[in-house]
Amino acid sequence: MKERIERLQKRMQEEGLQACLISDHSAMEYFIHRQFSCGERLIALIITAQGLPKLVLNELFPLELPSDFELVRYNDTEDGVQIVSQFLTGKVGVDKFWPSGFLIRLMAQRPDLNLVDGNLVDRIRSVKDKEEQAKMRQASLNNDRVMARVRELIQIGKTEKQLEQEINAAFRELADSDPSFDTIVAFAENCADPHAVPGEKVLTEGMSVIVDMGCRFEGYCSDMTRTFFVGHNSMEAVYETVRQANLAGIAAVKPGVRFCDIDRACRQVIEQAGYGPYFIHRTGHGIGLSVHEPFDVSAVDEIVVEEGMCFSIEPGIYLPNVGGVRIEDLVLVTADGCEVLNHDPKDQPVL
Amino acid sequence: MKERIERLQKRMQEEGLQACLISDHSAMEYFIHRQFSCGERLIALIITAQGLPKLVLNELFPLELPSDFELVRYNDTEDGVQIVSQFLTGKVGVDKFWPSGFLIRLMAQRPDLNLVDGNLVDRIRSVKDKEEQAKMRQASLNNDRVMARVRELIQIGKTEKQLEQEINAAFRELADSDPSFDTIVAFAENCADPHAVPGEKVLTEGMSVIVDMGCRFEGYCSDMTRTFFVGHNSMEAVYETVRQANLAGIAAVKPGVRFCDIDRACRQVIEQAGYGPYFIHRTGHGIGLSVHEPFDVSAVDEIVVEEGMCFSIEPGIYLPNVGGVRIEDLVLVTADGCEVLNHDPKDQPVL
Repeated sequence: MKERIERLQKRMQEEGLQACLISDHSAMEYFIHRQFSCGERLIALIITAQGLPKLVLNELFPLELPSDFELVRYNDTEDGVQIVSQFLTGKVGVDKFWPSGFLIRLMAQRPDLNLVDGNLVDRIRSVKDKEEQAKMRQASLNNDRVMARVRELIQIGKTEKQLEQEINAAFRELADSDPSFDTIVAFAENCADPHAVPGEKVLTEGMSVIVDMGCRFEGYCSDMTRTFFVGHNSMEAVYETVRQANLAGIAAVKPGVRFCDIDRACRQVIEQAGYGPYFIHRTGHGIGLSVHEPFDVSAVDEIVVEEGMCFSIEPGIYLPNVGGVRIEDLVLVTADGCEVLNHDPKDQPVL
Repeated sequence: MKERIERLQKRMQEEGLQACLISDHSAMEYFIHRQFSCGERLIALIITAQGLPKLVLNELFPLELPSDFELVRYNDTEDGVQIVSQFLTGKVGVDKFWPSGFLIRLMAQRPDLNLVDGNLVDRIRSVKDKEEQAKMRQASLNNDRVMARVRELIQIGKTEKQLEQEINAAFRELADSDPSFDTIVAFAENCADPHAVPGEKVLTEGMSVIVDMGCRFEGYCSDMTRTFFVGHNSMEAVYETVRQANLAGIAAVKPGVRFCDIDRACRQVIEQAGYGPYFIHRTGHGIGLSVHEPFDVSAVDEIVVEEGMCFSIEPGIYLPNVGGVRIEDLVLVTADGCEVLNHDPKDQPVL
């Protein structure tokens, strides 16, 4: 996408960067519309202020590149770092996921380079263009559709693992997609672990159920969490607090506020209800071609929200050995507020 | 494993390192016998010359650590890099897979540190102890068992994808394991791509079939490639060359030779047959808790082979648009040679 490269080059100029070195799979997909998997071997897309972007890739991996990219090959007997280094001068933004082993070798070979965090790329990717927005929207609509099925799939007698497998099958059937991340299914006290791994626990009457799940549409991710109760449950009041926090977070989203302001709006609902210490994670995270992208909706992220950004609002309350509630939606920032990408209802948790 | 930590500390002392920072999942499993998945959040195991090893981990991830490790927690509002940095002084070996974003922030905060490539850990992990050797052996025996099934599964009319799915199911049935990497199944001219992704190509009489596959046993990986012919095939002479190269590579393995010597022994068989330019990759790679580990069996790797090392010998010949042959076994270095961990026959490629 020439336009995306140009946006990056403009930002590079503003920040005095001579080059950006990109290696993350999703960033690569963003700029080249290709996916790569080359394991431990070096891969780097180098975007300089002028000239064609260059992709340095081991010759073992067949690839057709668009003509506005230059493909630079190396083989298993050559030092990819040395080949990358010949395209770099001055101040270089480095992909935050580039393995340190390569960076340390590059620094040893080229002490003259000023290697800085390549978060420019994150900034550009955080603002979704119209095409991306449409794909984010569709990915979440598909996720909604599967969540409607989840309500039917939740049945007494099933294990967390069984339900997880049925959800994953539903993604393939209803959304033509694999899950965009490992589906979380937790019952009862297992809900107290925000990253619970589905196990052999069997669902019985009166339990709570957390389902945190997503799929992809043309590469773009959805991500939504719902908490359900199989019959009435002592956590229903906690649920209502989390729902109010979710709504307060969403209401705070508009261009010009900082991520920490949204976190505050959301967190203070939970604090006021007395559950502050049990909301143990950030309020949300950016999302796009990756499930987790910059920026964090957290108390310490002072980045200013812009139209076109997309992120999650996912407050939770986790009571150790008792249970937990999390409600997560994706939002897309509009000119004066936000569009909530998920439409699955949040006001009927009792099944 | 206290003994593994002590081996590392001894090597650190020899090389003048005050600390090693470890973040790779398999390295973590090697030292703590625990697996982690904490996404983009910082994780670091810090092993210093004295004192308990420290694991820095976000508090979101529940964990019980053995008592000879210290758990250091941070939360989503704290800077994990700053917390890591307080345990570091002097010369520090950094995990080659640690994301550069963290390393760049650490360098900015602590310009006094001498951050070097943490390949000491690779060196220690490359020599498998008796317990690891037993697991590597079992993983390959299981892989042999599934390859025997593969011979039955290869049937005219199936697509590459179908065969791949059947193989993956066979791993679960016969080896109680998922594949240790994406199973490669390629037919006919698709065999010319060493990293072919299984597609919709249908197997017909006269085609060649490459299957490159592996599973895990208690975390340890197997990895084997076989090439088959469905009826007679013009590539049979190429097959025999690759088989001779595989045997020559294996015959060259013993303590004291360099990895490049093994590569040479293998490669020269292919060169002498006139196919040198079509053997486009290294001869092999280390393997253990990760499918690909240091070191490379390549023309440029001068590391000296030691008893207990485990790696692949996998020569191949790839003829663009025609086809390809690869034969891969794992070897375990013994006192005076090597033990071949795979027993699946290589002398009957025609099915």
